[in-house]
Formats: sequence, C-alpha cells, structure tokens
Amino acid sequence: MQITAQTVKELREKTNAGMMDCKKALVETGGNMEEAIKYLRKKGIINAAKKSDRATKEGIISSYIHLGGKIGVLLELNCETDFVALTDVFTQLSKDLCMQIAATDPRYISRDNIPEDVITSEKQIYMEQAKQTGKPPAALEKIAEGKLNKFFNEVCLLEQPFIRDPEQSVEDMIKLAISKVGENITIGRFIRYQLGVK
Amino acid sequence: MQITAQTVKELREKTNAGMMDCKKALVETGGNMEEAIKYLRKKGIINAAKKSDRATKEGIISSYIHLGGKIGVLLELNCETDFVALTDVFTQLSKDLCMQIAATDPRYISRDNIPEDVITSEKQIYMEQAKQTGKPPAALEKIAEGKLNKFFNEVCLLEQPFIRDPEQSVEDMIKLAISKVGENITIGRFIRYQLGVK
Repeated sequence: MQITAQTVKELREKTNAGMMDCKKALVETGGNMEEAIKYLRKKGIINAAKKSDRATKEGIISSYIHLGGKIGVLLELNCETDFVALTDVFTQLSKDLCMQIAATDPRYISRDNIPEDVITSEKQIYMEQAKQTGKPPAALEKIAEGKLNKFFNEVCLLEQPFIRDPEQSVEDMIKLAISKVGENITIGRFIRYQLGVK
Repeated sequence: MQITAQTVKELREKTNAGMMDCKKALVETGGNMEEAIKYLRKKGIINAAKKSDRATKEGIISSYIHLGGKIGVLLELNCETDFVALTDVFTQLSKDLCMQIAATDPRYISRDNIPEDVITSEKQIYMEQAKQTGKPPAALEKIAEGKLNKFFNEVCLLEQPFIRDPEQSVEDMIKLAISKVGENITIGRFIRYQLGVK
C-alpha cells in the first residue's frame, strides 16, 4: 500500500509523532488515520489521542442566558480573519443570533442539515393532512410542498424571520453584515438548553 | 390492545389534544407514543410535534466565555427547588463548574456516560502498552487497569481534580454544596465549544 506524504504530514500534525513513526503506523494500518493514531498509542510513541488545538477558522464563541437561567444558548460564528471577529458589526451579529436562537428554538442551521428521514416523515404527514381537505389528488402534492416549506422556514435558523426586524430573514441579516465587513461569515454551530427540557 | 389511562394522560400533556382523540390515536398506533403524535398531526388535530415546555427539574443554565470568545461553555446544573437554584452557593458552584469545563475539556459527566466501545478500545491500547514493558503476563492486566483508571480521572468531569483546589475532586466540591443547601444537586448536561475545533 502506498502512503502519500500528505497523509504522513496530517498524522504528524495530529500527533506530533516523528516522521518515520507516522509512516510506519500508516503502513501497518493500511492508511487508516484513526487506526494509525491507536497504533502510535499502543506502541507508547504518543500518550493520548487528544483533539487538535489548531483552530481552522476565525470568529467568536458567544453565549446568551435568558430568564435568569431558564434558557441558555452557545453559538460559534465564523469569519475569515481575527480582525473581523473583533469588529462591532460581527460581535453585534453574534449577540443578535444568540437572542434569536433563545427566542425561536431552531433545530437546524439550514435545510442542508436536516436528516433525510425527518424530511420524509414530515412530507408523509403533510400528504395525509392534504388528503383530508378533499381537494383533487393533483393538488395534494402542491399543498404538501407548501406545508413542508413552512416547516423549513420554522426550524431552519437561516430561514426564520429575524426577531428584531421580521421583514428580513436571518440569512438576509447575515448577508448585510457580510457586505459591511467585506468577508464571508458563517454559522459554525449552535446549541440551546432549556431548563429541564432535553 | 389495552391503552392505559396513564399513556393517554401522557399524550394529552405532550400534545394538548382532547382525551378521546388521544385514546383513538394510541389504539390506532398500538400504543406507540411517537406514532400516536404523528397520527394526530396527520389527522390535523394538532399542528406540530413541539418539544414539551414543561420543565421537569429546577436549577440554572449558565455559561462562560473564555479568552475573548475562543472557548465557550454551556452548563445545566439541577437541584430540587427553585429556591435553592437562587442561592449564592448554587450559583457559585455553577460558575466554578463552567470554568472547570473550559479549562479541562472533560468528555463525560461520569464513568456511567462512557460508551462501552470507548472503554474496550482504551483498554486494548493499555494492554498493548503494558506488553511493551516486558513485565510478566500476570501483571499486565493490573497495569492496564491502572491506566484505564487514570483515563477515567482525566475525561470524567466528576473525577477531575477541582481546578481551584486540586486536593478535592469536582464530585467532592458538589457534595460540599449539597451539604450546604440541603438538597440534591446534579449536573444535567454540559457542552464546550472551542473556536474552529469540532
């Protein structure tokens, strides 16, 4: 099996082990990165498979606690440079997004993040509901599609109406910030805790 | 199929649908709660399967942002009454725990939360390491167990040395708070974001 220099380099960066050890580990494990790390640990060459500390993106982690601790939000908002991460526009955007998430409890960032089985199950439900209307079969699919779109608007953060200006979507608001700071901004991840509700 | 009054009550509480609708939905779906909710939605009786808003526990959600937004922690700390949730002892404990999590990046609350395959894989690695010492086979198991215990101490929040007083474990510190407030305190859940590191 041929191990590329790129793979050896990646393992080196992940583990700080020597070049020859990394190459040997990859050869022994058929080039599988996870297994190669285990191999290096088994041989006592590295101590623990710790998460890499090398951040690949700039931005900020911000939080918002609502109602004296009944709801909490944690958000990673990314940009391209540390300089932009420190601007007022960027920090204000991260605050607004935290409040949005606290208020509206979105389940996903965008449609792309919704698992296929959730979409299938929702669509089934809307088709059944559509059948109850007594409308002609030809119209049912369209009714269900409309309801599915409404579902996406509700559960996807980017599609929600922005709470501080419901004429705009959250995505519009992010695009506005992008035009102001002059570099790309993306939502890395978010989570919302509500006391006693998992 | 016999549907218990308890199950009907549970579905009513989750959906706010009428008693008879809930009973019918459960009968039609063989008593499966998830399917019964879908049935009620399909029939147009309820609009959306939203998360219950009824909190089952008291406590607070708290957060901590470190290094100007490079690390963030969100924590749910639970107690039995809202009264205790508002005490200084409880709020100070939640702050200390957030700082602990930011500093030490624990992966689990306690050993009970570690998936079985993670334990198996770690133990295998320690057995291999032990073999390299050249010690007699009878001693290997003991060496591996020792290393596994050290791993638990590192990755389980409750077992970690408390950063503000490393003579005590985090669990000791929680027990101390329990003795002060006079009711049980548990860690509900936590999460730690590090910028660019998923």
